[in-house]
Amino acid sequence: MKKVILVIVITFSLTISAQSDQEIIRKIYTQSLTNGKSYDWLAYLSTQIGGRLSGSYNAEKAVAWAKSELDSLGLDKVWLQPVMVPKWVRGTKEYAFIETVPGKTTSVNICALGGSVATSSLGLKSQVVEIQDFKQLEVLGKENIEGKIVFYNRPMQAGLIETFEAYGSGVNQHYKSAIEASKYGAVAVIVRSLSLRLDNLPHTGNITYGNIPIEKRIPAAAISTKDADLLSTMLKLDKSISFYFKQNCKQLSDVQSYNVIGEITGSEYPNEYMLVGGHLDSWDLGDGAHDNGAGVVQSMDVLRLLKASGIKPKRSIRVVLFMNQENGLRGAKKYEEDARKKNETHIFALESDAGGFTPRGFNFDCSDANFNNILSWKPLFEPYLIHYFKKSGSAAGVKLLKNEHNVLVGLRTDSQRYFDYHHASNDTFEAVNKRELELGAATMTALVYLVDNYGIKKN
Amino acid sequence: MKKVILVIVITFSLTISAQSDQEIIRKIYTQSLTNGKSYDWLAYLSTQIGGRLSGSYNAEKAVAWAKSELDSLGLDKVWLQPVMVPKWVRGTKEYAFIETVPGKTTSVNICALGGSVATSSLGLKSQVVEIQDFKQLEVLGKENIEGKIVFYNRPMQAGLIETFEAYGSGVNQHYKSAIEASKYGAVAVIVRSLSLRLDNLPHTGNITYGNIPIEKRIPAAAISTKDADLLSTMLKLDKSISFYFKQNCKQLSDVQSYNVIGEITGSEYPNEYMLVGGHLDSWDLGDGAHDNGAGVVQSMDVLRLLKASGIKPKRSIRVVLFMNQENGLRGAKKYEEDARKKNETHIFALESDAGGFTPRGFNFDCSDANFNNILSWKPLFEPYLIHYFKKSGSAAGVKLLKNEHNVLVGLRTDSQRYFDYHHASNDTFEAVNKRELELGAATMTALVYLVDNYGIKKN
Repeated sequence: MKKVILVIVITFSLTISAQSDQEIIRKIYTQSLTNGKSYDWLAYLSTQIGGRLSGSYNAEKAVAWAKSELDSLGLDKVWLQPVMVPKWVRGTKEYAFIETVPGKTTSVNICALGGSVATSSLGLKSQVVEIQDFKQLEVLGKENIEGKIVFYNRPMQAGLIETFEAYGSGVNQHYKSAIEASKYGAVAVIVRSLSLRLDNLPHTGNITYGNIPIEKRIPAAAISTKDADLLSTMLKLDKSISFYFKQNCKQLSDVQSYNVIGEITGSEYPNEYMLVGGHLDSWDLGDGAHDNGAGVVQSMDVLRLLKASGIKPKRSIRVVLFMNQENGLRGAKKYEEDARKKNETHIFALESDAGGFTPRGFNFDCSDANFNNILSWKPLFEPYLIHYFKKSGSAAGVKLLKNEHNVLVGLRTDSQRYFDYHHASNDTFEAVNKRELELGAATMTALVYLVDNYGIKKN
Repeated sequence: MKKVILVIVITFSLTISAQSDQEIIRKIYTQSLTNGKSYDWLAYLSTQIGGRLSGSYNAEKAVAWAKSELDSLGLDKVWLQPVMVPKWVRGTKEYAFIETVPGKTTSVNICALGGSVATSSLGLKSQVVEIQDFKQLEVLGKENIEGKIVFYNRPMQAGLIETFEAYGSGVNQHYKSAIEASKYGAVAVIVRSLSLRLDNLPHTGNITYGNIPIEKRIPAAAISTKDADLLSTMLKLDKSISFYFKQNCKQLSDVQSYNVIGEITGSEYPNEYMLVGGHLDSWDLGDGAHDNGAGVVQSMDVLRLLKASGIKPKRSIRVVLFMNQENGLRGAKKYEEDARKKNETHIFALESDAGGFTPRGFNFDCSDANFNNILSWKPLFEPYLIHYFKKSGSAAGVKLLKNEHNVLVGLRTDSQRYFDYHHASNDTFEAVNKRELELGAATMTALVYLVDNYGIKKN
């Protein structure tokens, strides 16, 4: 008889608790969709500030703006965390053409890859060797490459369902393009843009020169997918055609910048920190609305939505807007360093850096015990069409905080359109849908609410 | 011992069969994403033909084009099914303004609702009564409405996750706007556009006059959401302001048109028909890319993808492109009538009419036995992020085929952006993402393959 009563009591309390979570999560979504701030914030950040590469004037404007907006939310603390960041400038717009015979040219669309050196002020003209991967460099050897431009033309794999997977298998072609080709005496590299669309937009991205001394670095540029196809076709017809380009970019000295941080101090466990964030810097070609204005305004709105939904967190919830994720990760490193020094225990960190598209779920980096615990909340997300809960990596900004107990999370969005805009001039405010952005902010807030309410498993 | 062997055999055969389904479905998705026809077809239908309202010249061009494309696929049969359709024409572009004092006017964006009568050639000007629902007509009564324009201004509910649900609760405000207001002596109706965005685009849609004789019908127009807000604000300041509009639309006599049908005849059960389709007609303001060019080209590509993936259907698979779904449903009715006469057993019908957005799953109208059978295939769809399997209504074009055994299905897409474009001038090719469209075609094909392979439950 006792046993029966116990069962009834447990069932009852579970029902109450589940209903209450359902109601709170419903409130969070309704708030975000009918009274959210994320879209207005994104409008300002994108259209009034714009692209904000680390070290730029716009990046400093974004820091000041974000701090001032967080100040207005009535959080317990808002502050700037100083961090030195690299400063690379694009200079005057790049210019390029294919030359079939002297004087007969076809203009193509390129942009310098981030971190690249300039060409000479007269530009650079040379024959082109087209390859698909680094192995071909070795096969071709110095005799076929020296003095030429290496053209990396491996397309992203359209057959993969997950565009981030296609990106992952393509990004080393960008990142190591110059360092690998210069080993064989190439004078420059041109890389096919990482996009699944055929269009005229070059997509930038960061490259590395490793330890190559500055005078030996070769310029690197991205070319639009349509122009990459054009160049490839023309090379098939005639290997002796030339490619000309001119770019004026430059790496300057590091400058002072900041992470922007706001906190709601926990009522019960103020020393257990939960982080939600995204990177505040962006590339310079568009206005960085999807990458990562969306993640910035969603993260800011998580704290506002918690307050607006009447939730008083037990744990300390921090929004962290990281500086310099695109070309250095200095902000994330600095945050982790300081947290370690202050012995701040981060039990949870959630990053949004997959564009302001319809949220589909989360990637988790955590123990099985924590993952299973989180999986038990999955039904709470079903009414919002959030179905994707997977154990895999989190995101660049928060992965440094990893320890054996904590839960690191990346918001997972519908990624089909992401690389249409990624690092290109069309990554602008108009490409973001208000509801999709707001659903992302609500989905993040719902997870933060649940983890704050129930804690994590420490095993 | 016998029992043990039996279990092993069953497990083995299930594994083989499951692997093979996985491989086939993988092939279908890869085909669609790397070698699909849907996007090229949509480019032609949208940009070279354009909006194709029933009875229009463009609709006839679309019929001829679709037949010719199907002819080129090497199907077993392709034919046109004649059907008489209504012909409504918009005439010269509508014009409207709000007048605060005589001569002081503000232009606003409207469009005639489908099926509406014209205003007089000089236009119509009157005071405005703003309401949110039909009940308010009764409360206000003839004394407050007679001689005035009724302005229905209930917005779509942004707090709902499913935009189709928000549409469903708003569409009667359009459809019955004129018939309800004319009971109280209104001279015209203006209806807030069914969109969740605030913008300047009026969205059209069909209305009914029921049995009202033509000379007593009052004109009905949709106004953009921004202008609806403007009008509402101005009415709050001054109830005596006037609204002027002029529209030149007209209902003409019915004309001959066609459903376009193609068939792969089944190798084992040729008399069991499986239908996949969408409506070929569209509204006239945009080029009907999402509504429903997407469904048309996806349905066409299902048959092509089956062939390209080496699948020889056991059952007869038909693509049916229905004419006149937007303002009459004559094509769907005609198809059902003919099928009934010929005693054609449709075991399955799948419609795509939710835009060319990322597919999320399906709505099913079928028995529990069939639904549970289909649910057992859910894991096969997981790699493609297809997670939504729900028993609910199907879609307008196929629901007439309902019988006690069969399975009627609506493709379910990510609907957040759908009503940004629905029935408005921005429903154009550029608003469709290639990969999202192709994923939809593959998802449809995968379900058709599974149902064809395993059949349905007849209980």
